Amino acid sequence: MMVKFRPYVLTLFALLLSGCVHEGLRGTGDMGLVIERTDGSILIVDHSVGKSLGRIEGLGDLSHASAVYSRDERYAYIFGRDGGLTKVDILTRKIVGRVIQGGNSIGGAISQDGSLVAVSNYKPGGVKVFDSKTLDLVADVPAKEAGETKGSKTVGLVDAPGNKFVYGLYDAGEIWSLDFSKGRTPKITKYRDTGTQPYDGLITPEGRYYISGLFGEDGLSLLDLWHTDKGVKRILGGYGKGEKALPVYKMPHLEGWAVADDLAFLPAIGRHELLVVNRRTWEEVGRVPIHGQPVFAMGQPDGRYIWVNFALPHNDTIQVIDVETLKVIKTLKPGKGVLHMEFTPRGDKVWMSVRDANRVDIYDTSTFERLGHFEAKRPSGIFFTNRAHKIGL
Amino acid sequence: MMVKFRPYVLTLFALLLSGCVHEGLRGTGDMGLVIERTDGSILIVDHSVGKSLGRIEGLGDLSHASAVYSRDERYAYIFGRDGGLTKVDILTRKIVGRVIQGGNSIGGAISQDGSLVAVSNYKPGGVKVFDSKTLDLVADVPAKEAGETKGSKTVGLVDAPGNKFVYGLYDAGEIWSLDFSKGRTPKITKYRDTGTQPYDGLITPEGRYYISGLFGEDGLSLLDLWHTDKGVKRILGGYGKGEKALPVYKMPHLEGWAVADDLAFLPAIGRHELLVVNRRTWEEVGRVPIHGQPVFAMGQPDGRYIWVNFALPHNDTIQVIDVETLKVIKTLKPGKGVLHMEFTPRGDKVWMSVRDANRVDIYDTSTFERLGHFEAKRPSGIFFTNRAHKIGL
Repeated sequence: MMVKFRPYVLTLFALLLSGCVHEGLRGTGDMGLVIERTDGSILIVDHSVGKSLGRIEGLGDLSHASAVYSRDERYAYIFGRDGGLTKVDILTRKIVGRVIQGGNSIGGAISQDGSLVAVSNYKPGGVKVFDSKTLDLVADVPAKEAGETKGSKTVGLVDAPGNKFVYGLYDAGEIWSLDFSKGRTPKITKYRDTGTQPYDGLITPEGRYYISGLFGEDGLSLLDLWHTDKGVKRILGGYGKGEKALPVYKMPHLEGWAVADDLAFLPAIGRHELLVVNRRTWEEVGRVPIHGQPVFAMGQPDGRYIWVNFALPHNDTIQVIDVETLKVIKTLKPGKGVLHMEFTPRGDKVWMSVRDANRVDIYDTSTFERLGHFEAKRPSGIFFTNRAHKIGL
Repeated sequence: MMVKFRPYVLTLFALLLSGCVHEGLRGTGDMGLVIERTDGSILIVDHSVGKSLGRIEGLGDLSHASAVYSRDERYAYIFGRDGGLTKVDILTRKIVGRVIQGGNSIGGAISQDGSLVAVSNYKPGGVKVFDSKTLDLVADVPAKEAGETKGSKTVGLVDAPGNKFVYGLYDAGEIWSLDFSKGRTPKITKYRDTGTQPYDGLITPEGRYYISGLFGEDGLSLLDLWHTDKGVKRILGGYGKGEKALPVYKMPHLEGWAVADDLAFLPAIGRHELLVVNRRTWEEVGRVPIHGQPVFAMGQPDGRYIWVNFALPHNDTIQVIDVETLKVIKTLKPGKGVLHMEFTPRGDKVWMSVRDANRVDIYDTSTFERLGHFEAKRPSGIFFTNRAHKIGL
């Protein structure tokens, strides 16, 4: 049997073939994703044009979800609240891998060399480490000692130089580090008695200092990864809910710590303040009165301003603080439920999720004007691909 | 007339069409280029696999060439010594634009928003600014006043926050800034009497301080871009060839300034030393004796080590300095003509060009072992795409 064609059909085929070779070809340095928390979906975005390129669905429970990127900035690893780890190809906008690796996970990290993705779990606790290409399990590190039945929740998981992961044990009050520099069986180092109920952690931008926020006591724990023999020391004893035990509507995110010049800006817990901390001495050097209970305090890439969002009932507001004068220089009202902000890599723009307006807003960081916006379903976290190039994100 | 086919031909067409859609698709976050200085060619490289992906020829005179990247990390702009500005698509590995914009150019920069590429010229002097998409001329800013016939050489051109470019005028001894924040006609600000014969410049990583190296006198000039009303001040009066007028085999590159913690490491001129400078006071706080006259002093991304290469007759050597002890902890001998180094974005590896061996070497920054190498013709500058996300590079 034969099939008949008019010649123009062939021409059409030929054109398609010649044209399609570069179909979809693009750089990935100006891309990112926006978490749509209630629909289990994400938007793939382009921050050069300030638009969404398309939606990917089927990522499970994305309330409180976060993401990291492969070193080539092509693949995103999304950590869902349901223990799902989903690998997404942002170029083809397809899910290329998904594992339910725990019962309730709270975030993850990618190793310095890009080969490993680690996830910290509330249930069953512990940390699981996966091959970043295949999502095959590489290491399963329960957060318990031999003989113990119940594992500890793990929190504040970050990557560190030397292919390490560092995290806190909520129930045990410890900090553990996994060293994968010698291969795929980690060297585990355990720091005991590092503070009651670490609820979050961060690592400074160069990857030297790991800091645990403590829920069970005031103050924070500081581990100098260049001198781990010196152990963990307490800093900022006044940091916490304090004697007055204020109502805390939302514990601040330590990842949000803004570091500018030799100062760090830390969201106070419960108080309408930012703490200003000297990064050399780790002592408090000032406080900035602000509009509400801070959630994220994020430093503009040029180090000049700190942008802050707030917990209920003030989560419709953003304030901008000048690093030199330590004064609020701008108050914006994007709308109810400003959950997260992300700066373009060199800081000319900042994006923010306005959950209740189902909108992502884009602001100019020099004029504070809104440049544009687009629709998103209950947007929360925004993650641009340049995170792939940063330590501890 | 009709053309007849057997069905399998159609299937073949269908397969081709479905398959080719993702032809060549890849992330660009782990890519880069290596300048082949004597052949007018570049290698496109992948730092995940540590290999060259292919060569692009026809870029003119690439002695002393440098490159910047578009904000999507797809296009490289290469500044040739012959005044050529070449735009290369690193995905298709093709030249997509080339203009001879001056007689003898010395480098360039891309604006914070990615829309403008600026080039500084020795001949005829001045700065030309181009549209980053089309390479159409946007602004031509001669480095001379009305009535003057001869323009000044321009040097040390960098981008700065607020869509600015900043550079030095070698002959006039001035620093000029072009502000493109209000559109495509720049607001020009001229800082007079900023030191004799600025030969190079740099901007600190956050984009606040612009520093000119001076050939005509000892010391450097510092401009605080947050407080330009305070004018330019001299720093490090002892920095320069000094009274002993040492022979200088190669003026060090200021772009190489390593900034780690609150210290900056500056290649001494003519001396076998690194100067250690306090970044708050801009005063010298120490000197590190090293193997030869330093050319680049580059900070490892984790801020722990400084890597230094040297001028003739010591350009076969690399030394690594510990930021805490200020001691040389490692001396490597990759081969004759180690011209440049580039760290992978999160610092697990460092690449170096070994010109006379026609080789690029890749070292592990934690073990100092050579992990791999590949052939390159007389390689010099190495530029990875993550530069697209940085201020002042």
